[in-house]
Amino acid sequence: MKGFFQLISSAEFYRLFSRFSPLPEEEIASGDGLGRVVVENSLKAAEQLPPFSRSTMDGFAVRARDTFGCSESEPALLDIIGEIAMGRPGTEFTLKPGQAVHIWTGGELPDKGDGVVMVEYTHLMDSRTVEVFRPVAPGENVIRAGEDFEQDAEILPAKRMLRSQDLGVLAGLGITRLNVHRRPRVGIISTGDELVAPDQPLAPGKIRDINSTTLAALVTEAGGMPKCYGIIEDNLEKMLGVCEQALRENDLLLLSGGSSVGRRDFTLQVLEGLHGSELLAHGVAIRPGKPTLLAARGNKAVFGLPGHVASAMVVFYLFVRPLLRLFAGLAPTHGLTEIQVTCREQIPSTIGREEYVRVSLEKDKHDTLPIATPVYGKSGLLRPLVAADGLLVIGRDVEGLDRNAQARVLLFP
Amino acid sequence: MKGFFQLISSAEFYRLFSRFSPLPEEEIASGDGLGRVVVENSLKAAEQLPPFSRSTMDGFAVRARDTFGCSESEPALLDIIGEIAMGRPGTEFTLKPGQAVHIWTGGELPDKGDGVVMVEYTHLMDSRTVEVFRPVAPGENVIRAGEDFEQDAEILPAKRMLRSQDLGVLAGLGITRLNVHRRPRVGIISTGDELVAPDQPLAPGKIRDINSTTLAALVTEAGGMPKCYGIIEDNLEKMLGVCEQALRENDLLLLSGGSSVGRRDFTLQVLEGLHGSELLAHGVAIRPGKPTLLAARGNKAVFGLPGHVASAMVVFYLFVRPLLRLFAGLAPTHGLTEIQVTCREQIPSTIGREEYVRVSLEKDKHDTLPIATPVYGKSGLLRPLVAADGLLVIGRDVEGLDRNAQARVLLFP
Repeated sequence: MKGFFQLISSAEFYRLFSRFSPLPEEEIASGDGLGRVVVENSLKAAEQLPPFSRSTMDGFAVRARDTFGCSESEPALLDIIGEIAMGRPGTEFTLKPGQAVHIWTGGELPDKGDGVVMVEYTHLMDSRTVEVFRPVAPGENVIRAGEDFEQDAEILPAKRMLRSQDLGVLAGLGITRLNVHRRPRVGIISTGDELVAPDQPLAPGKIRDINSTTLAALVTEAGGMPKCYGIIEDNLEKMLGVCEQALRENDLLLLSGGSSVGRRDFTLQVLEGLHGSELLAHGVAIRPGKPTLLAARGNKAVFGLPGHVASAMVVFYLFVRPLLRLFAGLAPTHGLTEIQVTCREQIPSTIGREEYVRVSLEKDKHDTLPIATPVYGKSGLLRPLVAADGLLVIGRDVEGLDRNAQARVLLFP
Repeated sequence: MKGFFQLISSAEFYRLFSRFSPLPEEEIASGDGLGRVVVENSLKAAEQLPPFSRSTMDGFAVRARDTFGCSESEPALLDIIGEIAMGRPGTEFTLKPGQAVHIWTGGELPDKGDGVVMVEYTHLMDSRTVEVFRPVAPGENVIRAGEDFEQDAEILPAKRMLRSQDLGVLAGLGITRLNVHRRPRVGIISTGDELVAPDQPLAPGKIRDINSTTLAALVTEAGGMPKCYGIIEDNLEKMLGVCEQALRENDLLLLSGGSSVGRRDFTLQVLEGLHGSELLAHGVAIRPGKPTLLAARGNKAVFGLPGHVASAMVVFYLFVRPLLRLFAGLAPTHGLTEIQVTCREQIPSTIGREEYVRVSLEKDKHDTLPIATPVYGKSGLLRPLVAADGLLVIGRDVEGLDRNAQARVLLFP
């Protein structure tokens, strides 16, 4: 055994991320921007939205003051000077006092028109005269030019992952190209003489590599681009060679293997043996996930993950995912949805380390908080992961949670 | 105006989906299965997992009974007959009474070995003899062959979207190909003489098409494959021609355009004019989203969406997304995360229709429920959508929510 872990808290682990920076930018079509992050200060509205004052109703564009004081019993009588067809400039018309023009939802207001009377509150006397039964205020049933976005306005908050509606706004503003942070590339390497690839025959004493597949999917889900380097035998020189190559080709490496002390020491040797790398963390005070290693080389990172896939997943969500999000231009948080739950049963814990308990969730009949039930199982088992909906968090200074206590759950994506 | 809506409730709308079936299957590599749904009854464990009984600790594999009654003061003395190297068959060794074998975490147990003593509770007398200070029970520190998945076991619950850990399990079981439901193809068509594509110059009276981009992103996010057919002018024959083509090429069509009554009537004419189509819904008692149309042709569906993108998004989440999920093999639910919140302020509503209020969420200092604040704004505006985190639901029979009332919010993905 090569010395003990030097455990740090998860908060200290997060502070290590301050040395890493978002990845360089690349230009993409806006339509491909879902889940990407725009480079700060690269985005301004070059035009206003809407580009002109628009009606929000079918009816008549009017000078609002011409309708003041009108009512069912004393309608205002206005001269109809025409119709603004959809897609035609409303400014082809100029309203004089006492005039109105037919307009449709979304149509451009005429010059001097400042309100729209809904068709429901009008009556056509004849093709050239309309009765108006309800007054409109200036601006009523109108979205004015630039009301959504003024020219030069900031369009989105900083460090924001683009959502569907954000892409809609960009389309509306005619922004069809974006500068976004490059997606992180992630190399995945499994070690272990007992491992075989999932598609290979299973000799006695061998077991299929589960971690590569799981980690690749977690990377994809987090917006990264995984590349698997297969299963590397327990040979330091060979392993260092593959890691050097993978580190050249990626922004982040994930090493995972067995959970034996020998395997952990091997991973530590690899991280320390990488040319120019610096070991940042050697153990973290969480459970599961204690034997987590982090090294840096420039702006690149290498994680040594716990061997059990259940533990590796916890470390991925808590630490790898935030770093991937930092690389992509976001704040370095896990970005999982957190919800409040009620514990179905007592859950023991240990002072001095955070615990992340796999739980399944059920809706409560009474429509309050969901009920969380721990899905226990030996840490090498996969079935509890399949049954779980998320991770219940027990703080470092808490001895356990009582039945019916409230707690926080990080939902699996 | 071409007749009134015949409003149905959202529950009635969902019942219309019973006529639709999941899409046919296709075979994919398991590694590409994230977010896909396995065809029912197509998946069984062909082998057991783990394939052999494995140690969960570094230490010594023993016959458990040989350790019964041992203690610090009276250790059991066992003969070491060798070491099971990682990846080597443990069954190369057979334990006789009084014998032990070195084993590492993940290693295969020897014949007749039924427990593992952690190295921490042993002391090497010499290279051939070990003292054991704590008894182990049969099965202790062992995962037995098939403990995770027995041969022929069901691996995943039915109608389950594959997650990272599920893919890991499939890898562990050597399942590298999957039969999944085909991803739904979705045609998107915008109508309106006032619309121009986002990359085109903006003539007076024209506005950029926002809905196509937004809907395409929503479809992608829901696991579908969008195809945009551009902006079709207000010409029934031309529109029917494009729709017929798009309906041949896709499983679902989304038509969206302006919000004028004329445009709605036009969309209705299109849905009724499609050869062999059947109009299933003409209006739904929700707000926003009332002017929603649904037609079917065989197992294909055509939605007429409200013109405002904010309303179209609500209808997408509530109705289009469930149908896409049904097509993909899931239960026809929206699949959005629902959370419980507290209302920051009073929110008025109307009896007789469900309301979906855009809200932004803040964490509460006191670590209970998040606080929801409505993001009001005219329905044609986009900025409220950019600011919102989800949709707060107000039931059909509720007149409004009081300040500090609890409510349900559907989170945007």
